Amino acid sequence: MKFTKMQAYGNDYVYIDAIHQELAKLPELARFVSDRHFAVGSDGMVLICPSAVSDFRMRMFNPDGTEGEMCGNALRSVAKYVYDHGFTDKTRFQIETFGGLQNIELQVENRKAVNITADIGQPVLDTRKIPVNTSEPEFINRPVRILDREFRITAVSWGNPHCVTFVDKTQDFDVETYGKSIEHHTELFPNKTNVTFAQVVSRDYIKIREWERGTGETIGCGTGCCTALVAASLLGLTHREATVEQIGGPLHVKWDSETGHMIMTGTSHTVFESEIEVPFL
Amino acid sequence: MKFTKMQAYGNDYVYIDAIHQELAKLPELARFVSDRHFAVGSDGMVLICPSAVSDFRMRMFNPDGTEGEMCGNALRSVAKYVYDHGFTDKTRFQIETFGGLQNIELQVENRKAVNITADIGQPVLDTRKIPVNTSEPEFINRPVRILDREFRITAVSWGNPHCVTFVDKTQDFDVETYGKSIEHHTELFPNKTNVTFAQVVSRDYIKIREWERGTGETIGCGTGCCTALVAASLLGLTHREATVEQIGGPLHVKWDSETGHMIMTGTSHTVFESEIEVPFL
Repeated sequence: MKFTKMQAYGNDYVYIDAIHQELAKLPELARFVSDRHFAVGSDGMVLICPSAVSDFRMRMFNPDGTEGEMCGNALRSVAKYVYDHGFTDKTRFQIETFGGLQNIELQVENRKAVNITADIGQPVLDTRKIPVNTSEPEFINRPVRILDREFRITAVSWGNPHCVTFVDKTQDFDVETYGKSIEHHTELFPNKTNVTFAQVVSRDYIKIREWERGTGETIGCGTGCCTALVAASLLGLTHREATVEQIGGPLHVKWDSETGHMIMTGTSHTVFESEIEVPFL
Repeated sequence: MKFTKMQAYGNDYVYIDAIHQELAKLPELARFVSDRHFAVGSDGMVLICPSAVSDFRMRMFNPDGTEGEMCGNALRSVAKYVYDHGFTDKTRFQIETFGGLQNIELQVENRKAVNITADIGQPVLDTRKIPVNTSEPEFINRPVRILDREFRITAVSWGNPHCVTFVDKTQDFDVETYGKSIEHHTELFPNKTNVTFAQVVSRDYIKIREWERGTGETIGCGTGCCTALVAASLLGLTHREATVEQIGGPLHVKWDSETGHMIMTGTSHTVFESEIEVPFL
């Protein structure tokens, strides 16, 4: 089976062409390829599939074989994959995901996509939809007691629940202790939540550290960057456009004031391409 | 740069032909290729080099860029690499390592090495050479107090310090707590030590779990298997030849009574081969 290893901000997946290759046993295949000692090793498997309603369709599987939701890093990588492999010569197209249709725009150099802009739609602030267990319609900068501290938390959904709190300095912050506690504060977040710890450096520069629901601290998370910008701009701390620095690198995010859509621009890299023998295919 | 990912008992390295390719900045290269998110990802880098004194020479680098000592899994994989890639058509040859010259014998099917036998020489029992801080010349089945328990420990060196203790059942054993404590018992083991927890199942079958110095629990360790057989046969618990089951799979080990050499036979697998762009080469 042919595969391509790509990474965006250190978030690495095994990308597989499911248009020209016959695949089967997808949960098993995801567990197999993701194994870092016995196979390729990755944060998961992403399939590039045909779509009945748009140019391409992506499907994402976690290393445990379950099918995942949308991921900005994987979305941008799929966009680069289909262009770099000549599946399309368009620089604007759509990719179907579990989170809906995503609009892509590529910046191309030497026939390769170098910057990928993805429109991931409007953030959901409605507390019933995120969900947040509160009678208030939105949950913006609300005080929440976590262990020994009070945090001001803003909650947003991008198809999955996110929240963000601003801290003085992300660098020394105890992300593990407080991230875990906020994630599991199920009285407030019945489906648990991803947690972004953000530091506003200037009106167009934010630093974040990300605690991912079910995973722990990660070095790159596109939707975490977007969550930070939503809260920071709503609170008047930044413009509606900023660079968000994650441990894995900086992402450019813009919350379009006309459409209300979040637009993120970032890179993705092809690490290597090869073939692997899959014992059960 | 061309590379091959191989694994033996889950111990995975990036193997690089340094005979036909020009390489440089080796510590940097090892750190680069070993990164599991941004590059190939592995337990380290192994170079296949020309040798002035034998057929081939292997050099091993840890993910932090330091040069490592001998590793049985890497040695067998190098043997498979040079045969499968047609660098030799001999099935008996020698590989030069930091631990000396190693004798290899291959069992071949369809022009590929399927079982690899490596003679890793004699175990060192001399306590001054291992080293163990004791006035006794050897350290075999000696009682040592670790936390709340007394263990009977046997110490051996294969170029680096190993010790083994027998437990009732490896499966439920708290390898982390006791492994860490024994590793860092520097009053007894001034250079620290690798620690094998072994369970004798029958006179030719041993199960182990391995705590590696500086690394933690690992799923495969050839020299850990050999250490278990040395102690078990010295104590009359097994024959001098046994199958040792690690989490990563079973290894066959034989302590030759004529030469005193330890001979291990096991597999190695090519996972995939590819090329990667190295930014600084």
